[in-house]
Amino acid sequence: MSKTHTLLMPLDMHLHLRDGVMLENIAPLTAYSFSGAIVMPNLVPPVETLKDIQAYKARIIAAVPNDYFEPYMTLFYKNYDKKFLESISQEVTAIKLYPAGITTNSEGGVSSFNIEEMRETLQAMSDLEIPLCVHGETDGFVMDREAEFMSIYELLASTFPNLKIIMEHITTKEAVTMLDKYENLYATITVHHLILTLDDVVGGMMMPHLFCKPIAKRPEDLDALLNVALAAHPKVMFGSDSAPHPQHKKEACGCAAGVFTAPISLQLLCEIFEQYDKLDNLQAFVSDNAQSIYGICPEFKEITLEKRPFVVPKDYSGVVPMYAGEEIAWAIESVD
Amino acid sequence: MSKTHTLLMPLDMHLHLRDGVMLENIAPLTAYSFSGAIVMPNLVPPVETLKDIQAYKARIIAAVPNDYFEPYMTLFYKNYDKKFLESISQEVTAIKLYPAGITTNSEGGVSSFNIEEMRETLQAMSDLEIPLCVHGETDGFVMDREAEFMSIYELLASTFPNLKIIMEHITTKEAVTMLDKYENLYATITVHHLILTLDDVVGGMMMPHLFCKPIAKRPEDLDALLNVALAAHPKVMFGSDSAPHPQHKKEACGCAAGVFTAPISLQLLCEIFEQYDKLDNLQAFVSDNAQSIYGICPEFKEITLEKRPFVVPKDYSGVVPMYAGEEIAWAIESVD
Repeated sequence: MSKTHTLLMPLDMHLHLRDGVMLENIAPLTAYSFSGAIVMPNLVPPVETLKDIQAYKARIIAAVPNDYFEPYMTLFYKNYDKKFLESISQEVTAIKLYPAGITTNSEGGVSSFNIEEMRETLQAMSDLEIPLCVHGETDGFVMDREAEFMSIYELLASTFPNLKIIMEHITTKEAVTMLDKYENLYATITVHHLILTLDDVVGGMMMPHLFCKPIAKRPEDLDALLNVALAAHPKVMFGSDSAPHPQHKKEACGCAAGVFTAPISLQLLCEIFEQYDKLDNLQAFVSDNAQSIYGICPEFKEITLEKRPFVVPKDYSGVVPMYAGEEIAWAIESVD
Repeated sequence: MSKTHTLLMPLDMHLHLRDGVMLENIAPLTAYSFSGAIVMPNLVPPVETLKDIQAYKARIIAAVPNDYFEPYMTLFYKNYDKKFLESISQEVTAIKLYPAGITTNSEGGVSSFNIEEMRETLQAMSDLEIPLCVHGETDGFVMDREAEFMSIYELLASTFPNLKIIMEHITTKEAVTMLDKYENLYATITVHHLILTLDDVVGGMMMPHLFCKPIAKRPEDLDALLNVALAAHPKVMFGSDSAPHPQHKKEACGCAAGVFTAPISLQLLCEIFEQYDKLDNLQAFVSDNAQSIYGICPEFKEITLEKRPFVVPKDYSGVVPMYAGEEIAWAIESVD
């Protein structure tokens, strides 16, 4: 009998579901194998009112009628007053901060980190216990953007010591180091950043389906990420940053950033954790740590994965996944 | 009256002309504005016999019937005996060494730098005064490949002190540093590596037409390259590494490496050198240094460029150039 591994209530703590037909096509893929997901607010226009949040949540739930799945909603960070934040605090799980223009649909983000201008909002979030999720990149040289952002994380973490700050989709050894430096800093890590370096993206041919922001970094960065993920460091959570784009936008001249991993994340994670003989730590990485950090209690869902060859589909409704058409080592066996 | 600048006998010391219909389409573009070019031997199969050299040269000359243009032929490096090298020494200007598999059509290159296995060939080249052109990259991490190759340049340069070694299409500050460390090390620099960093390739969108090998590096590398090019360091020559691929191979998933600059190189060089107020040094960079280093005497050709907006064509016979459809600041005014 082949090897199996069971995961309870997997959570994707960083997910792009988009909207409209794309939402309808891809949300069921995550809802099938995850109990819930932190849903990013970078729609066009972004999610920034109570009405936006409630309407988007309703559209997500309508897109996944056959599965139990909890969309943990987020608000697009701007400077908000405390009264507004109080009014939405029960509707959102976190607020997501984008530096302006740093990635897809982030034009309305923060253009300068003036702590005095942000103080009211961040202090209110701290008081209301709303975590701050951050896309931590400067507009510097592409390989340095995340490392350069560390001083901003340090400023935020030290100025608001009771605010939970999640360094999203970290890609560098510098970010890993921060986890043990500030009590209120946490991180999500994608599955593709546990596999790729820049070599995979542009070292041989140029691979648009592996192109994302933050871009995959150096071998020593990959090692640092693997170290904390495989150990299920208690401040680290899985967040796929699965980011669907239509095939024609990925394979064009000037391709959009984002790796689509939602339907194969758990399978790939089993492969990686098994390879390093750390399968026992995967439960904490894909669910337990997130439950503790966010204080959330997803309903019961049990996913059993089996070690058997699985050929990744060439596309899911026109969205090309990582490893499209290639064989991976684990498959989903059952969902209860 | 607008500003003009005249160049005499421009030389492209690193050029890919390919073969067949591609050769017929693109060779005239270089022949129009350059007096001559070092033609790379990485055809399929590579140029490695006297017959190959003579036949390829004849095909090049046949492709440019209306222009004076000297194709300086190269041989694909393998370990050859001295007798063979004597037989071809008058037919080639240099021998080009590729590490195996490092770039387009390089599968038959050198797979290990065992100096004893290479000694007969390299000593004979030294004796016969045949320069060695080298694609200097290891198979390491993409951003480190050239810097890692420096120890091989040092080994070659110190073991064969009378062999002229040209570090082709250098992209790093480490390679620039080598120029003043070994008397017999020289370099070519492309125009795109005087403009791009990795930021331009994958920092915003992913730009296949700016993807090349070696890949564009960091800002401090760009600065180092600009320093020696703008100063027309006497050991540095212009070599475009212009590398045409059909549009469908550049804009596909898994795009081929190479930037096509042949028809706009001189215009872009004028723009760069003027920007830094170094136009007076351009003649040395695009011709005089190469004449001295290689001991070649091209026939007279005078190119006058004019500072006026020029919109780069979207393609040349199905090959998309750098800056396709965009406006650049200089244009070719006349060729005599």
